[in-house]
Amino acid sequence: MNSAADKRVTLADVAKLAGVSKQTVSRVVNGSEHVTEDTRTRVLQCIDTLGFRPSALARQLSTGRSQTIGVVSNGGQGYLVSGVAYLGMVRQADKMGYALLIKEMTDFSSGSIRTMLDYLIERQVDGVIWAGPEIGDSHAWLDTFDAASLPMPLVAINAKPRPGVDTVSFDNFEAGRVATRHLLSLGRKNIGHIAGPTNRWVSQQRVEGWKAALAEAGTSEMARNVVEGDWDVHTGGPGLRRLLEICPKLDAVFVGSDRMAIGVLAEAHKLGLRVPEDLAVMGVDNLPESAYLIPPLTSMTQDTPRMAEVALRLLVRRICERRGEPYPEACAIPENPLLTHDLVVRQSTLCGKLASK
Amino acid sequence: MNSAADKRVTLADVAKLAGVSKQTVSRVVNGSEHVTEDTRTRVLQCIDTLGFRPSALARQLSTGRSQTIGVVSNGGQGYLVSGVAYLGMVRQADKMGYALLIKEMTDFSSGSIRTMLDYLIERQVDGVIWAGPEIGDSHAWLDTFDAASLPMPLVAINAKPRPGVDTVSFDNFEAGRVATRHLLSLGRKNIGHIAGPTNRWVSQQRVEGWKAALAEAGTSEMARNVVEGDWDVHTGGPGLRRLLEICPKLDAVFVGSDRMAIGVLAEAHKLGLRVPEDLAVMGVDNLPESAYLIPPLTSMTQDTPRMAEVALRLLVRRICERRGEPYPEACAIPENPLLTHDLVVRQSTLCGKLASK
Repeated sequence: MNSAADKRVTLADVAKLAGVSKQTVSRVVNGSEHVTEDTRTRVLQCIDTLGFRPSALARQLSTGRSQTIGVVSNGGQGYLVSGVAYLGMVRQADKMGYALLIKEMTDFSSGSIRTMLDYLIERQVDGVIWAGPEIGDSHAWLDTFDAASLPMPLVAINAKPRPGVDTVSFDNFEAGRVATRHLLSLGRKNIGHIAGPTNRWVSQQRVEGWKAALAEAGTSEMARNVVEGDWDVHTGGPGLRRLLEICPKLDAVFVGSDRMAIGVLAEAHKLGLRVPEDLAVMGVDNLPESAYLIPPLTSMTQDTPRMAEVALRLLVRRICERRGEPYPEACAIPENPLLTHDLVVRQSTLCGKLASK
Repeated sequence: MNSAADKRVTLADVAKLAGVSKQTVSRVVNGSEHVTEDTRTRVLQCIDTLGFRPSALARQLSTGRSQTIGVVSNGGQGYLVSGVAYLGMVRQADKMGYALLIKEMTDFSSGSIRTMLDYLIERQVDGVIWAGPEIGDSHAWLDTFDAASLPMPLVAINAKPRPGVDTVSFDNFEAGRVATRHLLSLGRKNIGHIAGPTNRWVSQQRVEGWKAALAEAGTSEMARNVVEGDWDVHTGGPGLRRLLEICPKLDAVFVGSDRMAIGVLAEAHKLGLRVPEDLAVMGVDNLPESAYLIPPLTSMTQDTPRMAEVALRLLVRRICERRGEPYPEACAIPENPLLTHDLVVRQSTLCGKLASK
């Protein structure tokens, strides 16, 4: 290590070498007019000698703009969505000239939320993406949230739309309805649902959509065929076994995630159930791998990177609006958009006919 | 929106209201003694009235510490590792009191690298994790890198260890060797390898390990049975078909990623090849899903979140060392550690006996 690198060169170092006040150095750096030409020259020489870099932070302090967006996540849970969403955000932020400041949140008490917001305010982020999933009452604080009380705009992703709060989410009710309609359209009479964790808003919405489709079809008696998984592959098999206990004639299953559906396919294989002849199986997420399972898995495409991109654009719109500046055309996002899933039908449900039992 | 939120309250606003200079407000905020008690009281009242938050940025400017770590990634490529690595970093950073400032990099020309480093220096990050994969000569600049020339330490992950540069990587040579030895131990005589992109350091190392194991076993003639994939599931099937052209008696395949191995299993199924009787298949990554494939996949566990955590700890050690401060015990990471993969044997290679052909 050379000694120059041991310590960051500060404004004070420049001031000392130049024999002027820190304020004078600051004036030179910020191009203020209240400095004599001699002083300016001397300060600039000292900046050069010491390798002082006029700090982005100093500019932030005077302009109040950091070109940084705070992202609050809880990566420990549901890593797939968080991991993929990060990448969508990182790419979009980069395109629009922002850096992301990522902070982890594990505790959703109101004190922790206040601390997190204060942290982000202190760092002068230009806006906030609230990216943790809505679990139980983790987002209850948004019900009474006064957006104007924050010095920067906030957008929540994958959360229940609320009046006065910007959200970008998927239409999980519609996803549940479309999936269930698809299985009904195959003529299946004993359909079950392996839901995600039932304290999640996303799972609850899909269950509501499932119930709505059954009600439309006059088959609400199937609505009781629901068990709970945790999104992860290891809960698919046990979920299938519990459904078979509730409904021994089970002939189709709508699984809340492709990862759980992989567990269902493995368990069906063990039990000697043919997919789709004996049991039609479908998931949600449409992972790249899902087309290559045995058999290829019917699924609902959930474009998580796109959700993150849309949220970032909406946030940039709000940042511009607060500053009274025009926003880029790409940021003209409608209020509280609900992105839709696409049904992709593959072999795991493609056989309309049931095997004779 | 209320008008208070339209604009951030600045030091200048407080100074104006209190009728003092910005420097005086700054002195009060930083607890300097060179302020009269009257002035201090008046300034504090104005801070309270306006809701001014003494800025973390201002503290950074005076202390040179941001409690922020810059992460340079290229998420667009190989999203699995990047996405999962992020989560390991986010968790570990949070534990150690740091935020992450994430920046995307798509172009690895020397000009872009300089610009990126300057950006991070301006933001006064306390350290840098260089997280993009080593592709072609993307990391060539590290060969002549003068670590002491940066005002903050830098750790590269998943990159070739180099003298004078901190790296945290996997031992991909050993992974290739262990995988190949495993397939040889089954008595297979016609083994092939579907490598990741051959311009990647990681893939090259695994190919070298594969060659070393074949040489040890006196079966170097198999070394030509190598084709290239791109890590993704869709290149597994085409990879298997090309291997069968080169080596029609192929009876085992070491696949560079579990995702490609999923494609290989699907293709083998289509071709009527039984796994493992006709063809033993193994991957690398040990995804949570791999235990639930049909048949369950033998793989090499690659603990990517751990790599990210170790890198972060090493970086914190370097940060402390530069400041002449003791570092936390958890940060006592050896130089340039190479983390190892664990072989997890499952049914896709568990049958030692070849089917009679």
